[in-house]
Amino acid sequence: MSVCVAKYHDQLISIRRHLHTMPEEGWSEFTTTNFIVEKLKEYGYQVLLGTKVINPENCLGRSQKVVDAGIAYARKNGVSEDFLKATEGYTGCCGILDTGRPGPTLAVRFDIDCVPVTESTEQDHIPQSEGFESTRPGLMHACGHDAHMSTGLALAHWVADHKDELKGRIKFLFQPAEEGVRGAAAMAASGIVDDADFFLGAHIAMMCKSGEISVNPYGFLCTTKMDVTYTGRPAHAGVEPNAGRNAMAAACNAFVQLLGIARHGSGMTRINVGQLNAGEGRNVIPSHAVMKMEVRGETGEINQYMYDSAVQIIKGCALSQGCEYTIEKMGEAVDLTNDQALVDVLTQAGNAVEGMNVRKDPMNFGGSEDATILARRVQAHGGKAAFFVLGADRPSGHHTARFDIDEKALDKGLAVWANAVSILLKK
Amino acid sequence: MSVCVAKYHDQLISIRRHLHTMPEEGWSEFTTTNFIVEKLKEYGYQVLLGTKVINPENCLGRSQKVVDAGIAYARKNGVSEDFLKATEGYTGCCGILDTGRPGPTLAVRFDIDCVPVTESTEQDHIPQSEGFESTRPGLMHACGHDAHMSTGLALAHWVADHKDELKGRIKFLFQPAEEGVRGAAAMAASGIVDDADFFLGAHIAMMCKSGEISVNPYGFLCTTKMDVTYTGRPAHAGVEPNAGRNAMAAACNAFVQLLGIARHGSGMTRINVGQLNAGEGRNVIPSHAVMKMEVRGETGEINQYMYDSAVQIIKGCALSQGCEYTIEKMGEAVDLTNDQALVDVLTQAGNAVEGMNVRKDPMNFGGSEDATILARRVQAHGGKAAFFVLGADRPSGHHTARFDIDEKALDKGLAVWANAVSILLKK
Amino acid sequence: MSVCVAKYHDQLISIRRHLHTMPEEGWSEFTTTNFIVEKLKEYGYQVLLGTKVINPENCLGRSQKVVDAGIAYARKNGVSEDFLKATEGYTGCCGILDTGRPGPTLAVRFDIDCVPVTESTEQDHIPQSEGFESTRPGLMHACGHDAHMSTGLALAHWVADHKDELKGRIKFLFQPAEEGVRGAAAMAASGIVDDADFFLGAHIAMMCKSGEISVNPYGFLCTTKMDVTYTGRPAHAGVEPNAGRNAMAAACNAFVQLLGIARHGSGMTRINVGQLNAGEGRNVIPSHAVMKMEVRGETGEINQYMYDSAVQIIKGCALSQGCEYTIEKMGEAVDLTNDQALVDVLTQAGNAVEGMNVRKDPMNFGGSEDATILARRVQAHGGKAAFFVLGADRPSGHHTARFDIDEKALDKGLAVWANAVSILLKK
Amino acid sequence: MSVCVAKYHDQLISIRRHLHTMPEEGWSEFTTTNFIVEKLKEYGYQVLLGTKVINPENCLGRSQKVVDAGIAYARKNGVSEDFLKATEGYTGCCGILDTGRPGPTLAVRFDIDCVPVTESTEQDHIPQSEGFESTRPGLMHACGHDAHMSTGLALAHWVADHKDELKGRIKFLFQPAEEGVRGAAAMAASGIVDDADFFLGAHIAMMCKSGEISVNPYGFLCTTKMDVTYTGRPAHAGVEPNAGRNAMAAACNAFVQLLGIARHGSGMTRINVGQLNAGEGRNVIPSHAVMKMEVRGETGEINQYMYDSAVQIIKGCALSQGCEYTIEKMGEAVDLTNDQALVDVLTQAGNAVEGMNVRKDPMNFGGSEDATILARRVQAHGGKAAFFVLGADRPSGHHTARFDIDEKALDKGLAVWANAVSILLKK
Repeated sequence: MSVCVAKYHDQLISIRRHLHTMPEEGWSEFTTTNFIVEKLKEYGYQVLLGTKVINPENCLGRSQKVVDAGIAYARKNGVSEDFLKATEGYTGCCGILDTGRPGPTLAVRFDIDCVPVTESTEQDHIPQSEGFESTRPGLMHACGHDAHMSTGLALAHWVADHKDELKGRIKFLFQPAEEGVRGAAAMAASGIVDDADFFLGAHIAMMCKSGEISVNPYGFLCTTKMDVTYTGRPAHAGVEPNAGRNAMAAACNAFVQLLGIARHGSGMTRINVGQLNAGEGRNVIPSHAVMKMEVRGETGEINQYMYDSAVQIIKGCALSQGCEYTIEKMGEAVDLTNDQALVDVLTQAGNAVEGMNVRKDPMNFGGSEDATILARRVQAHGGKAAFFVLGADRPSGHHTARFDIDEKALDKGLAVWANAVSILLKK
Repeated sequence: MSVCVAKYHDQLISIRRHLHTMPEEGWSEFTTTNFIVEKLKEYGYQVLLGTKVINPENCLGRSQKVVDAGIAYARKNGVSEDFLKATEGYTGCCGILDTGRPGPTLAVRFDIDCVPVTESTEQDHIPQSEGFESTRPGLMHACGHDAHMSTGLALAHWVADHKDELKGRIKFLFQPAEEGVRGAAAMAASGIVDDADFFLGAHIAMMCKSGEISVNPYGFLCTTKMDVTYTGRPAHAGVEPNAGRNAMAAACNAFVQLLGIARHGSGMTRINVGQLNAGEGRNVIPSHAVMKMEVRGETGEINQYMYDSAVQIIKGCALSQGCEYTIEKMGEAVDLTNDQALVDVLTQAGNAVEGMNVRKDPMNFGGSEDATILARRVQAHGGKAAFFVLGADRPSGHHTARFDIDEKALDKGLAVWANAVSILLKK
Repeated sequence: MSVCVAKYHDQLISIRRHLHTMPEEGWSEFTTTNFIVEKLKEYGYQVLLGTKVINPENCLGRSQKVVDAGIAYARKNGVSEDFLKATEGYTGCCGILDTGRPGPTLAVRFDIDCVPVTESTEQDHIPQSEGFESTRPGLMHACGHDAHMSTGLALAHWVADHKDELKGRIKFLFQPAEEGVRGAAAMAASGIVDDADFFLGAHIAMMCKSGEISVNPYGFLCTTKMDVTYTGRPAHAGVEPNAGRNAMAAACNAFVQLLGIARHGSGMTRINVGQLNAGEGRNVIPSHAVMKMEVRGETGEINQYMYDSAVQIIKGCALSQGCEYTIEKMGEAVDLTNDQALVDVLTQAGNAVEGMNVRKDPMNFGGSEDATILARRVQAHGGKAAFFVLGADRPSGHHTARFDIDEKALDKGLAVWANAVSILLKK
Repeated sequence: MSVCVAKYHDQLISIRRHLHTMPEEGWSEFTTTNFIVEKLKEYGYQVLLGTKVINPENCLGRSQKVVDAGIAYARKNGVSEDFLKATEGYTGCCGILDTGRPGPTLAVRFDIDCVPVTESTEQDHIPQSEGFESTRPGLMHACGHDAHMSTGLALAHWVADHKDELKGRIKFLFQPAEEGVRGAAAMAASGIVDDADFFLGAHIAMMCKSGEISVNPYGFLCTTKMDVTYTGRPAHAGVEPNAGRNAMAAACNAFVQLLGIARHGSGMTRINVGQLNAGEGRNVIPSHAVMKMEVRGETGEINQYMYDSAVQIIKGCALSQGCEYTIEKMGEAVDLTNDQALVDVLTQAGNAVEGMNVRKDPMNFGGSEDATILARRVQAHGGKAAFFVLGADRPSGHHTARFDIDEKALDKGLAVWANAVSILLKK
């Protein structure tokens, strides 16, 4: 039988809607983190911040400019200087509740950043008609992380309310910068999940409808995201073209070779250069070029093959065109196989919710998720990990201007979470 | 013996410095045009504006956004609505003075736009130390068109003062958008020089020092400037890359083929893609790409060979990658051979100036100039044309932040101009 | 219980060894076909030749030069002019035996060509030490088709010997030009298998050891083989490079784009340009280029996607470089799913052989086979088809100079075949 | 007044025709060298052979296979073993005549190899109708070196006949392997011209008609010829493409970058890859690729720029694709500015010939000639050098199947040569 979570319904909706109005990009979520921290403290949690949850050396794709803008936005929102100092410049936090009774440590993870999408202004888009649309043009919670956070906070609330019925310890990880699979590596490297016996994470919507959960998804592609820059030497294209070092030539020739990296006999590969910006003026030999790219592979080994091949090509083209190059890793995710023990827990937790359709068949997640980095860290330390999908109808695809989720699905999702915690930490 | 132009010295300097403070980009020179028109009227000229001097169908590289910004800047500067209306949105003008005596028509051309360079703030840069630096960050008269205009206006003043000694008619063309060789085609297509018996134009500095003029330069490269866009179809780079039509692939493969267009056996060629911007997001198959490019050739035929070869490549890559494409012509200039009769006039005009070193040997201009378009139009209608270079020392190259000209060279330059007019239109 | 095939042991070995000495390339197997026909007639079969079994319009990768060399070799071997005339220039044949009793028609297929490999001369290579090595340098039965033929003829012999115990009709297809997957399309297009209720084919060795058979292999890749030619225009590379049309440029740019065809979201793809020969002389703009290439896909649809994408690229590069092009299909194979009814028959046939390990688990064939074209034709006409693998130990990989098969495996293989025929056509 | 050379007319024609029948490729001209040596000895010359005239370390583009074939052909022609031994395997020779009187040393150079062209069999092609066509299919004196040799031998004969009227010393260089500009480097490196005060060379026909000579041609392009090989690793293109190292990918990507080497602001450049052969089989990742290529530049510096840029690209592509590479220099020629003193001598020598049109205006040679290597060596040692063109009508271009020269032009050409020798070495 399921636990009852009706009491948390209003909170689920109102927090989700509040956070939806104030989306923040990865590594800039100071206002968001401040909000979460206040709630966690209100519920009685011990909260860790800054370098206690983020290892600065492992931050991927973190732009100081974006961080500074986030701090400025936080100040505008009245976030205190004390809080900002406590973050040490790093967003995200961990709320810890110890029951005081011997038992396992469970880490649960919720991601908090938004995507760079401008929200639809059409009146039949519910956040518009209900008045909780993004107040920040160019930014939007278009992937559902607002719902993740409201679910996480409601779960934290429920755990605090039921702590007398539980044993062991629970850690709520609110992770920054999931978009671009950037934040998990730094959170994992902080060691915050090294003592976890269990790890659970979830995504809303994706391939599951309202009323469904997928307890054993597959197809979490290993991926590495990179920014590549070429620096050459400008020259007048009419007068002395030979004096230039053409960074655009390095980039374009790298591009054509990158797409041509040989397929792998043992499994699926992907490569994409999603952005290329090069050159200064029409009559100047281009001296700068930047490529935002990614590789993927069905396994870690295949992803590594793609990465290594790409690096060789990038180097070779720098040599060919007499340019300098840099490669900066901007994100990474690995693959994941859910531990069967947790698949069983999730199945039981889902079946306990009335009307829930628990999908145990393999469903293709078909994307990358950096929760896999945390999951792998837990598994590497002897713990068990699983990632599941909480269904929710949506009028439009993830990362689109009209993305929204069926809010009625949130209650059932919370119930599954609470049931799972209940099973794992029952006194 | 040379005419005396000492009276115009102060005007030469002050107008040049005034215009230096307020540089305007091509097709946006409303404040500048207004200034010139007021001066011409003050000197007694009939002035033509708008579509009388610019054929809208032949405008190259004219962005409505830039035009609108120029109009806004003009309003801020107090330029009247009546004037703005008279321009019909097109900058540049023609001042006409008819002596009333039968005689030839002489067209003289001065260009009025600036370049997108931020001026040096170093204190040893004379415009800074003398307080006439650009007030508009990102824009600068770094090619000497400020000096061209002050020379043109001083010459107009001199002509008005000496009109009783002259016969025939003189047309002062103040041409917009020379940078990127964009404005001359539209001015030529207006027919404004079709009745000219003689055409003269000049550039300051370049390969000539103070005290020199080059009366028969060569090496005006024919050139065509183009913007190329590819439009494909986006797709998720992980889930369904095959569903995309990769516009970046079209652009990069076009790039590598464009640079490889075969050299021409009959003369020099050039090709450059100066800017390439493509793609939307790291994990999306790029659906847009834009290339700003140019071709050049030693002759019109060779330039056409380069252009035709480029178009074939651009088309073929669209076909290969299943993308749509557009090619927009953004500028053009042709080559020029000075008519000997005018070379002789310029030689005589230069020799008359004390201490002037008249270079009749072939000197390489080594760049493109769209005065050649106007010169060719005059020659095609049976007139004679020449373009010369007025030397001036300069501390730094054209189009650089520390560009400046030796103002002492302006008087001698004006004297050459006035001598030439005097020879051609002497009563 | 298995049928007994011991009587055919000597024939199996001696015919295999005889054919091993005289390998013939695809479409040139006149001496080989003559040998087979004589045997089939000796066993009492009706034999069809020439256009009765090969549709000339569907021949892929058939070079007249190779055909002529095969005819010359046949004459040297004393093959009669009457026989050569009967072939109409096309190798391969079909032996038909009708029991006279109503029953199904079974088509069985064996391939007869060799590969262009020079056989090892090392003395521990059994064909050398036993004295049945290839007498034709550069040609070798290095894929096991010699064993296929001896098995096919032994089976034909067994069928003839046991015809009174059988019903229906059996057709023995001896197919030319399997290497490069070229011959099956023409044999299928002749209509020779259109009346078949059952189709069986097999390959020796591959992923199965002596004593194993795989009755339900997967991973028959769909593939299309093409020869692409570009024709441009030569020009002196020093004097007038612009006058050329560079066929090598078309080919090299096609190459780089071909390798870069986007991966497919729904399954595996492959592409290879295995040979590229272009150009005439060092100082001549290349006017000819030939690429021998292939595409593959996990399904027919994916292979078609690869083929269509390749064709677009090839066309576009011809346009870009002003060259003509041709694309000639040189071979094709499709995928295959064995019909369950025949999997069951093969399982039963295999289990009846003492000590045979019948592998019903999915084993990856990992290559292309044009028997799939015949199988698909039979299935399209309502028949059932299967392809199985008869294990045999081998000291070296297929298509290598030291390839050989464990001859002891041949008896068990024949037994499986005879059991299968017995099951399907039992009176 | 001109010297009289009528006596040598028959010799000029008969030797030219004899040599035309037996063309030999560069580095294989053993029969040709033997013929020349016999003539020189007959005229009384001291003759140097082998490593006295060829430095083996500087041989470019010398294939042992071609050398061996040349030796075999010489044996077939009855050339003695003693002679072959004396050559040490290196073709070409130097005939020296010392007048015994003090005076300058003059080196004159004639080239002796043919081109790989099959001669026209049309009956209106004079070598056919007159019966002196090439007897060697695939080889032809289609560049006029047969005429060069007959002129050189007639000149040697004339010098010997007039040695009492001359002072100083004359060296007749008969140079191998001019085609592909391969032989001169080795001859120069032998030191054979280091003592020359004057150097003269000439080419027949080219841009000059019968009755013309060009005494100051320009446009001798500097050039470097290279063979580039890439070696990768083969792999099955279907099963394990990732295991390969694709040499064709290295070559094709190098190709597209090579053509795209930036034009040079200071003068003309050229680049061509004239042949590319890569790959083994259709379904194998190509492990070998060979490119026969060349670069050219208007000056030595520009040619070096092209060469250096090419090498960088070739290296970079090896790195990008994980392949090994080699670059072998196959030929080279430099530019040449005739020394004015010798231009004057040639003018005088030409004017002395009745009806000769001496072209002193700059005429574009428009190709490469390795006589420039010898000329530069002489100039580097303080001597003076010139190369001139002896006009001759021709029905078809150099290096074509119907090439031929107007034999009537040979007498005037010899007269110019003899006049020049007479002026330089007059007692």
